[in-house]
Amino acid sequence: MNEYAKSKINRVKRGHNRATYDVEKINSILDAGFLCYVGYIYEGNPITIPMAYANKNDKVYIHGSTANRMLLSILESKKTSITITHLDGLVLARSGLHHSVNYRSATLFGSLKKIENDIEKTKILGSIVNQMMPNQWDSLRPMYQKELDRTLVLEFTIEKASAKIRDVGVIDEPEDYKLPIWAGVVPIKQVAEFPISDKGIPSKMDIPKHILDYYDQNK
Amino acid sequence: MNEYAKSKINRVKRGHNRATYDVEKINSILDAGFLCYVGYIYEGNPITIPMAYANKNDKVYIHGSTANRMLLSILESKKTSITITHLDGLVLARSGLHHSVNYRSATLFGSLKKIENDIEKTKILGSIVNQMMPNQWDSLRPMYQKELDRTLVLEFTIEKASAKIRDVGVIDEPEDYKLPIWAGVVPIKQVAEFPISDKGIPSKMDIPKHILDYYDQNK
Repeated sequence: MNEYAKSKINRVKRGHNRATYDVEKINSILDAGFLCYVGYIYEGNPITIPMAYANKNDKVYIHGSTANRMLLSILESKKTSITITHLDGLVLARSGLHHSVNYRSATLFGSLKKIENDIEKTKILGSIVNQMMPNQWDSLRPMYQKELDRTLVLEFTIEKASAKIRDVGVIDEPEDYKLPIWAGVVPIKQVAEFPISDKGIPSKMDIPKHILDYYDQNK
Repeated sequence: MNEYAKSKINRVKRGHNRATYDVEKINSILDAGFLCYVGYIYEGNPITIPMAYANKNDKVYIHGSTANRMLLSILESKKTSITITHLDGLVLARSGLHHSVNYRSATLFGSLKKIENDIEKTKILGSIVNQMMPNQWDSLRPMYQKELDRTLVLEFTIEKASAKIRDVGVIDEPEDYKLPIWAGVVPIKQVAEFPISDKGIPSKMDIPKHILDYYDQNK
């Protein structure tokens, strides 16, 4: 089993029985999303910013405007982390203390690099779009050079990581199971509703197959 | 209109046309969720932790074990912020640059206080459970004193805040509307699946009305 080394920064202290450092499990959490939470420090305060991402192997890519205060700040300071969380269920126990949620959450620590090469930048931006909507990039108008020039693409190499996964039912105090109180799990998931076509020309264009496929797989 | 004062820390720099400081709009983002992202600084690095919360007026309540490293750290340092985000849709434009998401995201800055009074603590813990599942707390076994004693409840008073809301369709370059490329929005929402009853005694207990109501309203 391939694992991230445990060190002070990524070792899970609370609920360590739910912790994992397994590279494959952590990658599967990243594969399952496209929205991450990036931490940065602004004037001594930690701030969390939701951003789109793409991941491949031990890399996570994020992007923004070349004037983006937060991206420029973390590129310079090297102080950041990335968190990706999926909520899977509400765990309703017989006591308040044992209420919980089922979830998969990964926290990543690593180093940042600016991508300078235009071909590489374009490919990464395509992968960010495709992580949100598979097979979307090739259907689009190609990027203009001026668009590429004002886009900052950062490559984050995962050096340390940990994840917490809870995917079991209710765990109550032994003596509480006999109480006349309902307990159980309400599964939660994120779904897509039917795509709403934009007005514009041509106005009667069919919804492409890859978008209908996404809807079918996520409805 | 009641607004949070703009200052250096909460003024939105990127996409300021989507920014709001309106107290009522920000409260409505908080009301719509129960999972927040709390930022803290650990050995110079910003880390983001997902946590349950409850909100009321200008307060946000979070909780954890009295041994929780992160809660104790932010209580002492006073350096934290809270982010709450709802994803509402994928915005699929005709060019990569104009891909976006519809979302509601609030970032809160403020001061933290530990709640010491047991009656107040219990009431707040009830509100955290009820924010996840309305009307749940009164159906549970009351908390033991020893459970309360090992639970840390923090009150965060919102002093500064901002939100970004995107809730419109595709915005493309004027010349791109004529391209033979589909564009539109795929609405995204979080839903509940049918509750799964825990094994235990009594085993044939009906699912309570307030949980079926939640399912009906979120399926």
